[in-house]
Amino acid sequence: MYREEIKVLDCTIRDGGLMNKWQFPDEYVKAVYNACVESGVDYMEIGYKSSEKAFSRSEVGAWKFCDDKDIRKVIGENDTKLKLSAMADIGRIEPEDIAPAEDSMLDMIRVAAYVHQIDKAIWLAEHCQDKGYEVTINLMAVSNVMERDLEEALEDVGKSKVPIFYLVDSFGSMYCEQIERLVKKYQKFLPGKTIGVHMHNNMQLAFSNTVTGIIHNCNFLDATFMGIGRGAGNCPIEILMSFLKNPKYKIKPILGVIQDYMIDMQKEIDWGYHIPYLITGALNQHPRSALKWMDNPETKNDFVTFYKQVTDKEDL
Amino acid sequence: MYREEIKVLDCTIRDGGLMNKWQFPDEYVKAVYNACVESGVDYMEIGYKSSEKAFSRSEVGAWKFCDDKDIRKVIGENDTKLKLSAMADIGRIEPEDIAPAEDSMLDMIRVAAYVHQIDKAIWLAEHCQDKGYEVTINLMAVSNVMERDLEEALEDVGKSKVPIFYLVDSFGSMYCEQIERLVKKYQKFLPGKTIGVHMHNNMQLAFSNTVTGIIHNCNFLDATFMGIGRGAGNCPIEILMSFLKNPKYKIKPILGVIQDYMIDMQKEIDWGYHIPYLITGALNQHPRSALKWMDNPETKNDFVTFYKQVTDKEDL
Repeated sequence: MYREEIKVLDCTIRDGGLMNKWQFPDEYVKAVYNACVESGVDYMEIGYKSSEKAFSRSEVGAWKFCDDKDIRKVIGENDTKLKLSAMADIGRIEPEDIAPAEDSMLDMIRVAAYVHQIDKAIWLAEHCQDKGYEVTINLMAVSNVMERDLEEALEDVGKSKVPIFYLVDSFGSMYCEQIERLVKKYQKFLPGKTIGVHMHNNMQLAFSNTVTGIIHNCNFLDATFMGIGRGAGNCPIEILMSFLKNPKYKIKPILGVIQDYMIDMQKEIDWGYHIPYLITGALNQHPRSALKWMDNPETKNDFVTFYKQVTDKEDL
Repeated sequence: MYREEIKVLDCTIRDGGLMNKWQFPDEYVKAVYNACVESGVDYMEIGYKSSEKAFSRSEVGAWKFCDDKDIRKVIGENDTKLKLSAMADIGRIEPEDIAPAEDSMLDMIRVAAYVHQIDKAIWLAEHCQDKGYEVTINLMAVSNVMERDLEEALEDVGKSKVPIFYLVDSFGSMYCEQIERLVKKYQKFLPGKTIGVHMHNNMQLAFSNTVTGIIHNCNFLDATFMGIGRGAGNCPIEILMSFLKNPKYKIKPILGVIQDYMIDMQKEIDWGYHIPYLITGALNQHPRSALKWMDNPETKNDFVTFYKQVTDKEDL
């Protein structure tokens, strides 16, 4: 069952930061980093690479920008096998904000884009490649993309030199048959490229859909400690690590971070499986309405009212 | 996607009762019953059918026995389409404890057995059939059964008149490829019989494995409200209901019970995904060591020590 090509990418700080505006204590970021190194994780996505013009440091933490000085302050020079990644959102970063890779703590830039932004994403990813970075393109919200638009985007990516392309279940709305079909489509349109998977847990399918990706030869696997991430969260890295048979991966350092930091963190941040996230996932909707609902402690557990509000139906 | 043959069996009280010795308030049992009726659930497993000699009423609640008078007291005469089921464990019930079906509130008896008990299970199930009940046999802990023993058991079940046989992932240790293989094996050995699935959530795969069962023509689907059940719990019925496209199923009554009762219940009962349950599941072990660990509030979140204790390995 061991496949050497598989790479595990931890995005605990980047995706988890969507729940607390990237305001994690340095000690926690350092603990996640140490555990990634000790567990044999291949990539750690430490945050977003954003323009200082796009966000204010009075509102968001350092991991929305991923400046080298902030990375160095917390984890030092990273003289390990673990590679560091940052995500770039189209429209929130200027090309000149990205230093040449040889001068940067970062090894990889992942470009996240909606389907209408795919040409900008290809341009930005190739620009980062030219600066010496490993790159991926992560096409978001594919469950809401019309087939013709998807195929046109895949044709464009196929002509690019971007080597890794991600299947992203942004809404946590897909199950195994849909994942299998899209993976095979991506592979058909992108011969020779690596496919990655980034899954959300609205229907408790994040790990399962990642397994479907593994079975169908996806080799970049996103996961987070205890599944932390926006809304229902992501594929829990501790489950993924206990499943992969690659001898380089170890689970114990990850368990240590979960018990030392994340049990308490769960009291402050409401990520994970909750009914409002299930409802938006099952309806193939963006989780923003569920996130807003969960933000009000008075009403967050009134699931029936939320359900009525998002459906206006009486018969589901 | 709609398949008329599919039956959803709620086992909230029966499997959830493993976490509180079946001591649910009557009001809660009634609420679950009402929601099952309104949601179009096909069967509600209200508890175990056990001998009064095997357990003491000072230790376990009424749903360990499922006496007609207790059922009537809470839900009345059940003049609805919902069928009532009870589970019988081999060795904890005498045949004479089971009244003729025409005199009983119960419609179905499900016989749970380990592989070495399969002949006793067939005898008891056929005995219940002769008394007028619908019956199933649920073979437990199949992930630990040697292939030859399994095939011998399946041959015996194949010769019986028991019409429904369950694939049970007692340890929550299996993933889709294992489920698919076993379902196909069961179908090969049991032509003409219906296969059911009962999954546990140790690796967050209970719903996903149930979907795998659906894809491969399993037609009896076990689930519980909010996944309540022993240890990591079961397939959450609210996710299953949001997935099935059968127009008779409705999710809203289930959401009502979850918000009115189960959010608070979670503060008292620690079912669901927790790291000790993941560890026993990933190791294909009975969850009893994890249940015991979780029972001690002082140490339950010391996952690293638990992991060391159950593995004696340093390298996973």
